[in-house]
Amino acid sequence: MHLELVTIGTELLLGFTVDTNSAFVGQALAAAGIRVIRRTSVPDDAGAVREAVRDALGRSRLVLTTGGLGPTRDDLSKHAVSELYGLPLEFHQDIWDELAERWARMGRKLGERNRGQAEVPRGALVLKNRWGTAPGLWITGDLGEVIMLPGVPTEMKGLLTHEVVPRLAARAGASVVRSRVVRTTGIPESTLAERVSDLEDALGPLTLAYLPGLEGVDLRLTAWETSPGAADATLEAAAGNLEARLGDHAYGRDEDDLAAVLLEACRERGLTLAVAESCTGGLVGTRLTEVPGSSAVFVGGMICYADALKRELGVPERILLEHGAVSAETVTAMARAARERFGTSIAAAVSGIAGPDGGSVEKPVGTVWFGFADARGVETAHYVFPGSRHDIRARAAQFALLGLLRRAKSAGA
Amino acid sequence: MHLELVTIGTELLLGFTVDTNSAFVGQALAAAGIRVIRRTSVPDDAGAVREAVRDALGRSRLVLTTGGLGPTRDDLSKHAVSELYGLPLEFHQDIWDELAERWARMGRKLGERNRGQAEVPRGALVLKNRWGTAPGLWITGDLGEVIMLPGVPTEMKGLLTHEVVPRLAARAGASVVRSRVVRTTGIPESTLAERVSDLEDALGPLTLAYLPGLEGVDLRLTAWETSPGAADATLEAAAGNLEARLGDHAYGRDEDDLAAVLLEACRERGLTLAVAESCTGGLVGTRLTEVPGSSAVFVGGMICYADALKRELGVPERILLEHGAVSAETVTAMARAARERFGTSIAAAVSGIAGPDGGSVEKPVGTVWFGFADARGVETAHYVFPGSRHDIRARAAQFALLGLLRRAKSAGA
Repeated sequence: MHLELVTIGTELLLGFTVDTNSAFVGQALAAAGIRVIRRTSVPDDAGAVREAVRDALGRSRLVLTTGGLGPTRDDLSKHAVSELYGLPLEFHQDIWDELAERWARMGRKLGERNRGQAEVPRGALVLKNRWGTAPGLWITGDLGEVIMLPGVPTEMKGLLTHEVVPRLAARAGASVVRSRVVRTTGIPESTLAERVSDLEDALGPLTLAYLPGLEGVDLRLTAWETSPGAADATLEAAAGNLEARLGDHAYGRDEDDLAAVLLEACRERGLTLAVAESCTGGLVGTRLTEVPGSSAVFVGGMICYADALKRELGVPERILLEHGAVSAETVTAMARAARERFGTSIAAAVSGIAGPDGGSVEKPVGTVWFGFADARGVETAHYVFPGSRHDIRARAAQFALLGLLRRAKSAGA
Repeated sequence: MHLELVTIGTELLLGFTVDTNSAFVGQALAAAGIRVIRRTSVPDDAGAVREAVRDALGRSRLVLTTGGLGPTRDDLSKHAVSELYGLPLEFHQDIWDELAERWARMGRKLGERNRGQAEVPRGALVLKNRWGTAPGLWITGDLGEVIMLPGVPTEMKGLLTHEVVPRLAARAGASVVRSRVVRTTGIPESTLAERVSDLEDALGPLTLAYLPGLEGVDLRLTAWETSPGAADATLEAAAGNLEARLGDHAYGRDEDDLAAVLLEACRERGLTLAVAESCTGGLVGTRLTEVPGSSAVFVGGMICYADALKRELGVPERILLEHGAVSAETVTAMARAARERFGTSIAAAVSGIAGPDGGSVEKPVGTVWFGFADARGVETAHYVFPGSRHDIRARAAQFALLGLLRRAKSAGA
């Protein structure tokens, strides 16, 4: 089973927006056994949209469009496709009422601008948009089928995942491509490649891709098989081998987030967490609280960006003067103070030089010290992370989470 | 002047690779006055490539392709296009010699597999690739022109910038496209559209695009003009009109970040900042400390995710019991305590229900209270933000920054 994708937006062609939607659509459909065989991107222009959809239907009979469904006047996909099918637009009171109610709950009032969002080409299936205002549309006719989704990524993803993929997957045949990701952190790509080199030689029909990012290197295994069961079995065996080889560097699978893995490990062991953050400025807390339900484990902590707040937390003036804010002694005092003051099982402290200024020969930009305190004492570590200010902070937050995870696992062992 | 882009690669359609090449091409060509009017992406399949290039030539006479020129894919694109033009491939000894020499310098030997990279369709212009092995090709014939570049980003960018853009720009004449973004926040897209509706009608040759995101709506103005000076003047006038209409909702231009704008406003006025974050869990601190040099203004603060830490900060038990953690009373006490304890000019407090659980009829998921304390007292505000947990937190952090900016400006006024 295959379809063509038409993405609509002048921004995409001017290059002001990177087309991440297409990658999401490609992956989500491939996982369900549906191949995107062509993608066409056209500007916000009714003629161009109509022509692209018509040509795609002519070739493939099934077309998915993204973009051009919002309330502003540069949104025109619905009109272009309705015209192509010769369908009048009909106002749906129920869509309007629901929209009005939702806005009312947020203390806002719908304007005339939004009226068009309740208009639907006659006979089209309406896909309810719980993530935004413009519903998705599924139009069927002599020309074939067009599924229209908004271009806003959260709305497109929600509708695709919950409304489109299940309907198409039910129709798709048996040939599937599946992939599984083994997520690693705290180990450089080249070291990783050396360590799994012999496993890689023995992969057989699978492919292995190294995907390095700020939070570590993802290893993606991909299998093209005749059945989901066969694909899953092959992938499972290969992923298990990689994980056994990589020890605690392999912290999860697929979309697993290290913060969520850590929180779960703590919950199982009845442990609580606090942080004291200097150079990360709240990023470790942000990562932890991004996970729903984190409040059962994470109590909070302090952002001690200025030295005055490190003193306020409980770092002795003498330590800051003698060793500096970026030192083993300071992170030890920060971690210990945070743990005692906030009454948690474990506390992490982070202090470093994120740059671009503030580096020296002894402590270059990228130098970050970590302290992990629990009932047994404080353990420290330090790294010099590469990259920009943003990169250094992201890598430091990820390492803080890995250090907490190691501490949590050994505490509970 | 315009062209069509054809990007070649199965991984693009499967979504394993995000198509950042297209964005680069769009921007680089637009800056030189050349519009990409359509982009087609096809898999590594000779028939699909031939058909896509043929159709694109039929519409536009000028086509740029990326991908399918490397040694591993058997020069699929080159064969497909040569066949389309009816041109034989000819072996170029000079390309081969240069390739062999380069490889020898790296201590490697060319294999038979690389021989195809020295083959060129008869009469094609060879674009020397200093960034890799496969040269670019520029084929001219009755069907029109095809410019073929490799898909590896560094090679594609090098060839496009140094070999393609100068040749096309020379033909494009004086026409340039420039754009300017007015960044807004705290105002929904449809309200924004109504408020600037009359300005939009009077835009003349400019186009206006609404780009909604979690941090607000960007308004992108684009001008196609005969000179950079003319474009800048038109854009400046239109951007100024939008800003005058939108007041403090328009906080910056282009890549401006609200956190950076806030920090600069504070620096000018000698103000310092602290935060007390509950549902954002450190995200406001993260936004502020992402900006280099933020330590001159931002001292840090507390992540009071658990109520115990709100009490530790200084929120009376009675307030938490009587009004709950998500209330005007609690954020007032949080903001006041943070300001006093950390000794800053202004402090912001954020407490809300980010979901997915924890909502009620009175306080649905998305409800967030804000407190802003300065020497004059505490001001509060609350919103019900739409979207996922991630969205709600991102919107809340952005609103906290906007509230701080308003407070900073009025303090200094």
